[in-house]
Amino acid sequence: MNKRLFNLFLALILFTGIANAQKQPKYIFFLIGDGMGLSQVNVAEAFLAAQQNKNGTLPLVFSKFPHVAFATSHSLSHGVTDSGAGGTALAVGHKTKNGVIGMDSAGVKPYKSIAYLAKEKGMKVGITSSVSIDHATPASFYANQPDRDMYHEIGLDIIKSKFDFFGGSGFLKPTTNAKKEEVPSLLPQLEKAGYKLVNGIAEYNQAKASSDKIILMNNKGANNVSLKYAIDQKPGDLKLAEITSAAIESLSKGKNGFFLMVEGGKIDWACHANDGAATIQEVLDFNSAVAKAYEFYQKHPEETLIVVTADHETGGLALGNGSSTLRLKTIANQKISQEVMSTLINDFRTKNASASWDQVKAFLTEHTGLWKDVKVAEKDEKEIFAAYEKSFVNHQNETQKSLYASNDKIASLAVNALNKASSLSWASGSHSAAYIPVFAIGVGAEQFKNKMDNIDIPKTVAKIAGWNLPE
Amino acid sequence: MNKRLFNLFLALILFTGIANAQKQPKYIFFLIGDGMGLSQVNVAEAFLAAQQNKNGTLPLVFSKFPHVAFATSHSLSHGVTDSGAGGTALAVGHKTKNGVIGMDSAGVKPYKSIAYLAKEKGMKVGITSSVSIDHATPASFYANQPDRDMYHEIGLDIIKSKFDFFGGSGFLKPTTNAKKEEVPSLLPQLEKAGYKLVNGIAEYNQAKASSDKIILMNNKGANNVSLKYAIDQKPGDLKLAEITSAAIESLSKGKNGFFLMVEGGKIDWACHANDGAATIQEVLDFNSAVAKAYEFYQKHPEETLIVVTADHETGGLALGNGSSTLRLKTIANQKISQEVMSTLINDFRTKNASASWDQVKAFLTEHTGLWKDVKVAEKDEKEIFAAYEKSFVNHQNETQKSLYASNDKIASLAVNALNKASSLSWASGSHSAAYIPVFAIGVGAEQFKNKMDNIDIPKTVAKIAGWNLPE
Repeated sequence: MNKRLFNLFLALILFTGIANAQKQPKYIFFLIGDGMGLSQVNVAEAFLAAQQNKNGTLPLVFSKFPHVAFATSHSLSHGVTDSGAGGTALAVGHKTKNGVIGMDSAGVKPYKSIAYLAKEKGMKVGITSSVSIDHATPASFYANQPDRDMYHEIGLDIIKSKFDFFGGSGFLKPTTNAKKEEVPSLLPQLEKAGYKLVNGIAEYNQAKASSDKIILMNNKGANNVSLKYAIDQKPGDLKLAEITSAAIESLSKGKNGFFLMVEGGKIDWACHANDGAATIQEVLDFNSAVAKAYEFYQKHPEETLIVVTADHETGGLALGNGSSTLRLKTIANQKISQEVMSTLINDFRTKNASASWDQVKAFLTEHTGLWKDVKVAEKDEKEIFAAYEKSFVNHQNETQKSLYASNDKIASLAVNALNKASSLSWASGSHSAAYIPVFAIGVGAEQFKNKMDNIDIPKTVAKIAGWNLPE
Repeated sequence: MNKRLFNLFLALILFTGIANAQKQPKYIFFLIGDGMGLSQVNVAEAFLAAQQNKNGTLPLVFSKFPHVAFATSHSLSHGVTDSGAGGTALAVGHKTKNGVIGMDSAGVKPYKSIAYLAKEKGMKVGITSSVSIDHATPASFYANQPDRDMYHEIGLDIIKSKFDFFGGSGFLKPTTNAKKEEVPSLLPQLEKAGYKLVNGIAEYNQAKASSDKIILMNNKGANNVSLKYAIDQKPGDLKLAEITSAAIESLSKGKNGFFLMVEGGKIDWACHANDGAATIQEVLDFNSAVAKAYEFYQKHPEETLIVVTADHETGGLALGNGSSTLRLKTIANQKISQEVMSTLINDFRTKNASASWDQVKAFLTEHTGLWKDVKVAEKDEKEIFAAYEKSFVNHQNETQKSLYASNDKIASLAVNALNKASSLSWASGSHSAAYIPVFAIGVGAEQFKNKMDNIDIPKTVAKIAGWNLPE
């Protein structure tokens, strides 16, 4: 090779290198399935196949993405993370103590999230969830507070964030601070800071033309704690996919692109309740939100990065509990969440305080298919009957209240029996240390390729985007 | 750009394209952890960290590989695969019915495995395992039989394979065919076909210089069914890593490279027994075999591909069963497998037919740390005591015989209690439909990047190697 050729060759290599290095996404989607381990994705895929009487799986939008990886999720303090430390790891690239939001374990040093880095670069930023806007996962992207339960203070951090779009069910403690003192409401303060607060999609549509900063909450009169479970939603109920679409529309006004975080927050809640049917519908609902991002990607494939991941797995879910034949289709007999079923049983008990076992069985058959379409194992029937006796004969009401739901014992045992009959098994009602999945498509997606730690995920996003995430 | 430059530019692009397309590995390692789902890898990694009193995980050799993926594993007949259909999928790139080895579901049409493709290209081929050479997973790479239980016929298929190296514990049915007829022994027939049969590493070392075709089996007098569980191995016992090293050495004699399949076969067996301590040690033992492949890779990085995967997950293993604090270090109290513990309990019973509860507790404490170093939950103690009463007081011996092990009820309950105390949970004693992991390094490894189906794994190997895997 003569010298001229050699120089050309060298220039070409350098040019190629620089071109590759400079390719950065203008639009970044960061979607988090709370509690969505690999098993939750797998079960949702297998359910889609089972509904068509097919063996194996049918893919979700994001399980077809061309790049996948998986990651460890432990926190700085625990082998099993909570959503505070888990969300923080994904948002800021640092591990912290369970319960902390966007700060070090001592709750002293605040960490800067990748959402702030996007904002600094002039991008618009949106933070959305199917649960409350001040919940641990969304909070991790805009707030810095020593305790995830400081909902009021977390909500106030929206003001300093100057982010452009927030979406979710609402706020948990608008008028009560961490010291349990009554304080001036958060909502007018957000309005004063320039946010237009809207309830539901209709109000959003009215406000969108004239408002650059929007906080989209649940429909007026609907629950501020979370959107309804997907399995319980009726036409007109606010959906995560609608929030996602609104966010995309609103953020698209910017000239410098956007960063949008979307949390499927109730996958975790359904898994805490070991409610397989609700879990599957939550994953599919989250998938519908991812589909909105994917539609955007298809219009801007050269400028968009989508990352789908999770903060941790919940429940230690397994698909297969003894037989080689999966009976996952069976779970479709359940048409409402265990939570709603608990409420209905309470109502039923109010009206039929001494209902017969046959009446209660008929109630459960209606909502789970047990005894009619699903064979009930002797041991399971015995447990449900014992709970019936305690409640309807001896009138001792057994309801477990947790952070996430009120579970009537009878509903919980019936759902448990249906899960077992549907080849699902749960290790516990808590988070597990299972690997979390990563699915990616678009600009830089190929960098999600090895077994990672959860903090590597935002670091990789920052690297792809050319941002300097503080150590 | 003038025309000369343009042509040069074009030529350069074409050249780069061709160069990339032609880059094929000369040495291919295909390592299969039988029953090794993502959880089994995760638990082994977490155990390494726990032993050093660290939170989180410490990596295995293969979990540091630069490319990972995961895959579905259902068979053609079942949502949950067995090792026949699972091994076949990984070997030939076709799904089949549970129980079939290298054939279609009807057991009529044989499929050609990637090992045969390697052989056709002049590469040397090795098939090795920590269980018997005629077991489902290794068999899938060289045999074509309608039933995995046709051990004699599977063994005979070695002759037609003309493969160069086989390693494992031995053969299950050298003199009994599928019709349960006594037939001439397999072993002299293998010798007649040119194989040198050796027992243990010392015999291998004596034979290796003069033998091109070797079948390496367990030490003389040792078990032909499988190598000992890693947790039970003593110095001098044959190890999977030794078999792997011998295979590499023997296959390296070829000028055209090699294809080596290594199965960690007893991860599955330990998981069938829900024996967490044995499972962890089996994964680490398999990792030691991968380390031998990795050492080879480090000497030939431009010519080697290593793929580590699994045929299915076994047991529905979860890490985390309620608490955020993992107590995985606790499982190190168990120093022998549940299988050996069962044998010891049988011996103990023979000598102490009416041993007291305290004597049996002392026995269990010795082997599991229960009561001394590990708190036993009331429910667990009750169950163990009931089994003690049945066995030592009422003299009804409860031993479960399965395909994989004889489990004494007391040993099984003690191991179960220890697993629970160590934050491990099992969904069942059977295979599950969990995703299987893929880890890859070397030439073409970047092609393992998306969510796959198990049959895509050998297809991708064939594509990387430039082989034409029959549809």
